[in-house]
Amino acid sequence: MQVDEEGRSARKHRQIVEAATATFLAKGFDNASMDEIASLAAVSKQTVYRHFADKEALFAAVVLSTTEDVNHIVSLITGALNGTLDLERDLGRLADSFITALMQPRVLHLRRMIIASADRFPELGTTWYAQGFERALAAMADAFQQLSERGLLEISDPVMAANHFVGMLLWIPINRAMFTGDDDGAGEAELARHASATTAAFLAAYRPAR
Amino acid sequence: MQVDEEGRSARKHRQIVEAATATFLAKGFDNASMDEIASLAAVSKQTVYRHFADKEALFAAVVLSTTEDVNHIVSLITGALNGTLDLERDLGRLADSFITALMQPRVLHLRRMIIASADRFPELGTTWYAQGFERALAAMADAFQQLSERGLLEISDPVMAANHFVGMLLWIPINRAMFTGDDDGAGEAELARHASATTAAFLAAYRPAR
Repeated sequence: MQVDEEGRSARKHRQIVEAATATFLAKGFDNASMDEIASLAAVSKQTVYRHFADKEALFAAVVLSTTEDVNHIVSLITGALNGTLDLERDLGRLADSFITALMQPRVLHLRRMIIASADRFPELGTTWYAQGFERALAAMADAFQQLSERGLLEISDPVMAANHFVGMLLWIPINRAMFTGDDDGAGEAELARHASATTAAFLAAYRPAR
Repeated sequence: MQVDEEGRSARKHRQIVEAATATFLAKGFDNASMDEIASLAAVSKQTVYRHFADKEALFAAVVLSTTEDVNHIVSLITGALNGTLDLERDLGRLADSFITALMQPRVLHLRRMIIASADRFPELGTTWYAQGFERALAAMADAFQQLSERGLLEISDPVMAANHFVGMLLWIPINRAMFTGDDDGAGEAELARHASATTAAFLAAYRPAR
C-alpha cells in the first residue's frame, strides 16, 4: 500500500515533468500556464502544486531532467574510446554519434529555451552548465587523458583538447540552429561531413609525431 | 534645409535604435514598451512609429544594427592575416582580438537575445546568421585560402578550417556565457589561454608538414 502510494506519486511527478516540458517548449516560460500543464498531465492543479511549489520550480525540474541526456552522451564517449584498438575509426564513430545526439530537434529546442531563460534564472543555467555541458566535456577529457597515457594522443590539457574536439564539431551546426530557430535543418550528410572533418583535424593536432 | 531635415531624421532614427537596444536588452522583447523607448530616445511615440511600423520592426532594426560589429570583426581578420610575415604571431594576435571582441558583455547579451527570439522571429534570426555569423566565417575562410595559396597553411576546405578555428576558440567561453547568463565572467587571462591553445592546435592541424 505504502509502496503503491510512492509508485503513484513518482509516476505523477514524471507525468507532470513531461507535460511541463511539452508546454514550455511549445509556449515558452511566460505563456505556459500551470492549468494547461495539469490538464496535459491529466492531474489536478492541486497535484501539480503538491509536487512543485510554483512555475519556476517546475521549469527548473524540466531543465534539470535533461541532464539525463548527458548520461547518454557520457556513455557514448566511454563506449567509443575506452580500450579502442583503432583510434581513427572509433573517434570518427564518436564524432558521428555525438553530433547526432546533440542535434536532435528536442535537444536543440531545450538548449535554446535554457539560453533564453539564463537572464532570468541564472542559478538554473549555472547548474545546467555544470551538470550538463561541463560533465560531458569532463567525460571526454578523461577518455583523452587515458588515450594520452596509452601513447595514442599527445595531450597536456585534456579539458582543452575535449573543448577543441566538441567546438570544431558543433560550432556551425549548433549556432545555425540556435540563431535561425531551425531545429531540423542539418541533414545527416552535413553532420557526417562535420564529424569527419573534426576527426581529421583533431588527430592532426593531437596525434603524437611519428 | 532639405539636408538638415534628412540629418535630423537620420539622427532620430539612430537615437531610437539606441534607446530600443538598451530597452530590449534590459527588459526583453515582451516587456519592452514603445512608450518607454520613445521616452528614452527623447522623441514622441508618433516619431517612433514614423520610423518603425511596430515593435517587431524596431526589434529587427536593433538586431541587424549589430552586423556593424561584424564589420569590425572582418577588419580584425584581414588586418591580422593579410600579408603576414609571422603566421604564428599574427594568428595568435587574431585569436586574442577575436575572442576579446566576441566576449564583450553587450555582444554576449545581444547574442542571447537573438537566440531567445529565434523561435518567434526565425526570418530575423536567419538574416542575422547569414549577415553576421556566416560573414565573419567567410572573411576568415578567405584569409585562410590566401595563406594556403602562399603555402603557409594546407587547407582544402577554408570554411571548414575557419569553423574549426572559431569553434575551438569560443566553444567554452560562449557557451558558459549563454547558459549561465554571466556576461562578464571570463577574465582576460582565461580568454588568452583559449587564444593560445587554439593557435597551437590550429597550426598543428593545418600547417604543412615540413
